[in-house]
Amino acid sequence: MMKSFINVDPDSHFPIQNLPYGVFQPLSGGKPRVGVAIGEYVLDLSVIESAGFFKEVGIEEDGIFSQPTLNKFMGLGSKVWKMVREEVQRLLKEDEPTLRDHTALRKEAIISLNDVELLLPAQIGDYTDFYASREHATNVGTMFRGKENALMPNWTHLPVGYHGRASSVVISGTDVHRPKGQMKPAGEGSPIFGPSKQLDIELEMGWFIGPGNEQGKPVAIADAEDQIFGLVLVNDWSARDIQAWEYQPLGPFLAKSFATSVSPWVIPLDALEPFRVEGPKQDPTPLPYLQKEGASSFDINLEVYLKGKRMEKAQKIVSTNFSYLYWSMAQQISHHTVAGCNLRPGDLHASGTISGPVKEQRGSLLELTWRGTDPIQLETGEQRVWIEDEDVLTITGWCQGDGYRIGFGEVTGRILPALDS
Amino acid sequence: MMKSFINVDPDSHFPIQNLPYGVFQPLSGGKPRVGVAIGEYVLDLSVIESAGFFKEVGIEEDGIFSQPTLNKFMGLGSKVWKMVREEVQRLLKEDEPTLRDHTALRKEAIISLNDVELLLPAQIGDYTDFYASREHATNVGTMFRGKENALMPNWTHLPVGYHGRASSVVISGTDVHRPKGQMKPAGEGSPIFGPSKQLDIELEMGWFIGPGNEQGKPVAIADAEDQIFGLVLVNDWSARDIQAWEYQPLGPFLAKSFATSVSPWVIPLDALEPFRVEGPKQDPTPLPYLQKEGASSFDINLEVYLKGKRMEKAQKIVSTNFSYLYWSMAQQISHHTVAGCNLRPGDLHASGTISGPVKEQRGSLLELTWRGTDPIQLETGEQRVWIEDEDVLTITGWCQGDGYRIGFGEVTGRILPALDS
Repeated sequence: MMKSFINVDPDSHFPIQNLPYGVFQPLSGGKPRVGVAIGEYVLDLSVIESAGFFKEVGIEEDGIFSQPTLNKFMGLGSKVWKMVREEVQRLLKEDEPTLRDHTALRKEAIISLNDVELLLPAQIGDYTDFYASREHATNVGTMFRGKENALMPNWTHLPVGYHGRASSVVISGTDVHRPKGQMKPAGEGSPIFGPSKQLDIELEMGWFIGPGNEQGKPVAIADAEDQIFGLVLVNDWSARDIQAWEYQPLGPFLAKSFATSVSPWVIPLDALEPFRVEGPKQDPTPLPYLQKEGASSFDINLEVYLKGKRMEKAQKIVSTNFSYLYWSMAQQISHHTVAGCNLRPGDLHASGTISGPVKEQRGSLLELTWRGTDPIQLETGEQRVWIEDEDVLTITGWCQGDGYRIGFGEVTGRILPALDS
Repeated sequence: MMKSFINVDPDSHFPIQNLPYGVFQPLSGGKPRVGVAIGEYVLDLSVIESAGFFKEVGIEEDGIFSQPTLNKFMGLGSKVWKMVREEVQRLLKEDEPTLRDHTALRKEAIISLNDVELLLPAQIGDYTDFYASREHATNVGTMFRGKENALMPNWTHLPVGYHGRASSVVISGTDVHRPKGQMKPAGEGSPIFGPSKQLDIELEMGWFIGPGNEQGKPVAIADAEDQIFGLVLVNDWSARDIQAWEYQPLGPFLAKSFATSVSPWVIPLDALEPFRVEGPKQDPTPLPYLQKEGASSFDINLEVYLKGKRMEKAQKIVSTNFSYLYWSMAQQISHHTVAGCNLRPGDLHASGTISGPVKEQRGSLLELTWRGTDPIQLETGEQRVWIEDEDVLTITGWCQGDGYRIGFGEVTGRILPALDS
């Protein structure tokens, strides 16, 4: 098994097989720049680039890794991504002396994760959220519209998606104030205004796009995976009472646009290749533009933890898997562009809530508590129906290899009380 | 009446009372920069700025008007916008010699509109489309869901809106290929794939946002108009057959994300003040966060012209007015931010289709032809139900003053045949 000269625990999320990209700023000062996580450290790619190690990888512009976002690198495309990844992997190998034995360069380029602040990895031009889990769509549809209308007739024919809000995507660790808004509780004649009483998470995975496509020129499904720069964990915070009142006929708006949290490390698709699996069988067969040979899903374990203010440690409330998603990332990308919509480097796509067939695999409180009717029992003896103030919600995920993990780190966020307006 | 030393026709859209901002590139070369339209000319603000005329207007950073977008200027806020407008108006007055009599500066700063290319005025971080016309929402609702469910229960309580696609907003004059997609024609058992057969316009007005608000800090309705940098015409092209199949439950997606066209000149809110009028009476009274003293609408005439490939001249097919909009811009802005969503300089909001109470005031073919059942008669003897290939659709608008017009120019676009994929 490949190993790095940097010591990495077997249960670390960031072994040499992973090498996720992120944007960081040293706490000691200096500008934001691009790095790669390795064990408990970050490799500063701006230093590696300055030292001349990326001369042969097809990057024509200087300073790609001195940028405050990954957008330019994302725009270079999958061939360049592969070559950079190979070079970084080579430099970090235990039997490769170039960096290992170069004390000065090592000191400059390898920084403890404790000594950096992680930032949003991209300037997100557009954020698109899909609705790709059949179990999730069925659960929500049943609760909002009844069992007969749970899955709309279009759902099994196309990956339903909608435009989300790019401005309010925040990095893991950002506190989020409970949103206020209009809602219409059952039995009230008129809508009321106030803090949401049904605040929820959505366990999702997201992927950053590069290099994108020209307006009017769809991405063929055979080429769609070349548009995936890498994956992150996404928590699409949702206010269910605001959503229920506002969402017809144009879809969710303020119920979700107050905040969406993403994990800081972007896991390259290449790191996930050993964990490629078939997704669910699709019946009916999709139209030809959505048909692709071969396995298009990935075996990624996903968990959600909740820690209330009276809890000593976080409690696991969800345990599910990415491979339950009905529509693949490639299908979502091809569908997104088929009418001519252009994608740009740095665009974020998210899967929608990922739920599996059994109860503990449901990726939202809405589903776990069946709209509040079946509370979660916490170890403190408390119950939880929706998120309470000061609750910390954390999503984590990883692929389990033989003796190593390809991890996604975590996306975490704490809910603060609503602000007086 | 105030006049400029530059001769301006009484029916010109760009008298000295208007002074809209745009981004242009001289055809002779040079970088994109910011200008102001005056009659048949553009005043190059980067030249005026370099000449030192904006020293006293509170702009601390150099080169605000040498930018390829208006975003930085939009971010400076309404006090700075006002001071810049006053200085530009002073410089262009007929009795003001500073620029009028400075031959060299005049030659450098005043360029014929024939000698420039107009570009997208802003880098649009997020594009939000509302649904603020009661007549439009009622017409569409009746056609898609029947008369009983035409207006959803939420519609009279909040300005319904959704996130649009920012990447595919294009400048007036950009050709648009007919989109392809999934649709399910009546009587078909399964969806089909192909070019849209129900391609439509939406006559809308848009406004660019600046300076924006911090995430979690809503914009109070009393402050909402300070967020409006200026207004443009918007054509939100829509494929109705794709829309009908895809839009439930998360709203329109590919039916609109292939292209949205905007006019190049951004009309300052200050130029519209003489045309401020009351909007429709709102019943029920909105919740307090949507209540505002005083008139919040504007008397803006709006027209749509269609020119088919066999037509010698364009034919007017819509004649309506901005003041029919039920929800004001201020209400839309306050609502957008009330749950904590942050707006950023350069964000584009659009009103949704503007329809009035009578037939020729309907702002889409969907409504004009009542979903294809009542064709438009063209002067060539042809009929039109939906847009045909090579049709050119143009929206124009203006406020009629006493002896002058505050015009919006136009937003135009030609539909080209669907591309082979």
